[in-house]
Amino acid sequence: MIDAAVAAVSWEDEAVVYVDQRLLPHELRRAHARNVDEIEAAIRTLAVRGAPCIGVFAAYGIALLRRSIADAGALAEAVARVRSARPTAVNLAWAVDRVLAAADPLAEAQAIADEQRAIDAAIAEHGLALIPKGARILTHCNTGPLATAGGGTALGIVLHAQRAGKCPRVYVDETRPLLQGARLTYWELRRAGVDAVLQVDAAAAVAMAERAIDLVVVGADRIARNGDTANKIGTYGLAILAAYHGIPFYVAAPLSTFDFAAESGAHIPIEERSAGEVREVAGVAIAPSDAAVFNPAFDVTPARLIAAFVTERGIVTPPYPNALTALAPL
Amino acid sequence: MIDAAVAAVSWEDEAVVYVDQRLLPHELRRAHARNVDEIEAAIRTLAVRGAPCIGVFAAYGIALLRRSIADAGALAEAVARVRSARPTAVNLAWAVDRVLAAADPLAEAQAIADEQRAIDAAIAEHGLALIPKGARILTHCNTGPLATAGGGTALGIVLHAQRAGKCPRVYVDETRPLLQGARLTYWELRRAGVDAVLQVDAAAAVAMAERAIDLVVVGADRIARNGDTANKIGTYGLAILAAYHGIPFYVAAPLSTFDFAAESGAHIPIEERSAGEVREVAGVAIAPSDAAVFNPAFDVTPARLIAAFVTERGIVTPPYPNALTALAPL
Repeated sequence: MIDAAVAAVSWEDEAVVYVDQRLLPHELRRAHARNVDEIEAAIRTLAVRGAPCIGVFAAYGIALLRRSIADAGALAEAVARVRSARPTAVNLAWAVDRVLAAADPLAEAQAIADEQRAIDAAIAEHGLALIPKGARILTHCNTGPLATAGGGTALGIVLHAQRAGKCPRVYVDETRPLLQGARLTYWELRRAGVDAVLQVDAAAAVAMAERAIDLVVVGADRIARNGDTANKIGTYGLAILAAYHGIPFYVAAPLSTFDFAAESGAHIPIEERSAGEVREVAGVAIAPSDAAVFNPAFDVTPARLIAAFVTERGIVTPPYPNALTALAPL
Repeated sequence: MIDAAVAAVSWEDEAVVYVDQRLLPHELRRAHARNVDEIEAAIRTLAVRGAPCIGVFAAYGIALLRRSIADAGALAEAVARVRSARPTAVNLAWAVDRVLAAADPLAEAQAIADEQRAIDAAIAEHGLALIPKGARILTHCNTGPLATAGGGTALGIVLHAQRAGKCPRVYVDETRPLLQGARLTYWELRRAGVDAVLQVDAAAAVAMAERAIDLVVVGADRIARNGDTANKIGTYGLAILAAYHGIPFYVAAPLSTFDFAAESGAHIPIEERSAGEVREVAGVAIAPSDAAVFNPAFDVTPARLIAAFVTERGIVTPPYPNALTALAPL
């Protein structure tokens, strides 16, 4: 799916090897986590980010701890540190628990990584049907191989379209505040030979009006039972702009992202992150250090603005409450 | 209108004194331009920015040159350098010509500065009627005293509402790529005691949905005969988002901004600026140095999305072609 040399996470010689995403796009450096300090730090400092990618990294991390720490008390303490490194990432706790319970921890971690790759591949294959040849695509944030340690979700579809000879042109929102679009998505697209164009987030509307965008595709952080979708801040606005311009707006996400216990978007809690992310860009202050800031990490796009969901089980189109609840586990 | 110590441009002891806007919000430094080199550099390096502010600065600058350069050939050469320092700012050439033709150049420059202040004050007074007490206002880019060397246009209305005891709360888009919102608008609002909140541009939609925004008010760079309005990139998207949420969207601009020769927005040329503005933030690279970039400086908001224009002659509401052409010079 992606050149092995750039796999976001892998296992090598009793170490979890990962791409330090903080250094991209300036430097592609693979780092090694060999103990609990290094595992915890990689997650906490965002060297490893993207919920599925964190899950795969933590799976290998717990396997490493189980193989290297004999004392049960010390192991429990180390596991607790990894589990709490990013309290909001559901994939983290889920992966930790699976590897803890497994008879063969390393085999279980590899199974988790393999499953993620298979899910991403299925999403990409289903999504391909939505991409016309020569499509002009707009995307937001980062949903590629770096985010999942597989082929990616929304960006996985785009990369698959490129491999399938559809020659997409992709307009990439830089995605303030953390610039995942500028730093990661643009880099992933260019590396794959995709015709990519970077823009500030506020240029999305004029790109739709004047650059003949055919479709928007984004990922999701959590999807409620009725299809309301929480995703990176800016997604909701993009969906409104797409509707205004008559452009289909797609969400690509694995079934693990669906929260069937949440009746609607009103039941999805929205994390407000630190003011420093807005007051500074790449470590440089752009506003007073005590500036009051509104910095929601996510927003909720109502289901009525979403033309289709792409999951590993296929494409889901309206009417949503029914089409989506059919996917729910019994 | 604004504390004299912070006047964006003034005349003192044979020098044009200006706030170096590149240093804000970190440092409020007043600099002196005493010769053609310093006048040209201040405009070219964006130390002085905002079309009306550039006009006032250039007016004093030409007065200075006329008072200090005796040789006609040397004067003509110096004037030409100032005139071409920012070729796209219409106020620049207009102010240069007025001061060149005047019998008393310094009196003419002061008249231009006084007129700008009077125009801004009239816009602020008319606009006050649109601001409810306790209004939650969203704005974009910088349209305050720094941008006009007067009281400001869109932000002038907000500041006037504050003085009138209406206690507005203002959500300020940071305004990538050049961050005029974060660097200048937020600073101007806080200095005036206004309850201001900074946000990334992509947070505007969720602010409208969840923070009960009452109105959006922005400035304009050029307004066509039919009301289509060119303004800072992101304005068009904001207008669509405001319409979706049922929030009135206002444009505040002096009559000099109206281009009655342009039939519609399609006749307004949109400048695409350098890729470096997007590849870097505050001098720090955030994307590959050869990244392909889409960086239109402005976008065009169709008149149908604009609830009213606020000019020095009053508030203009639809139907537009007629209401606006009534303002046209004979």
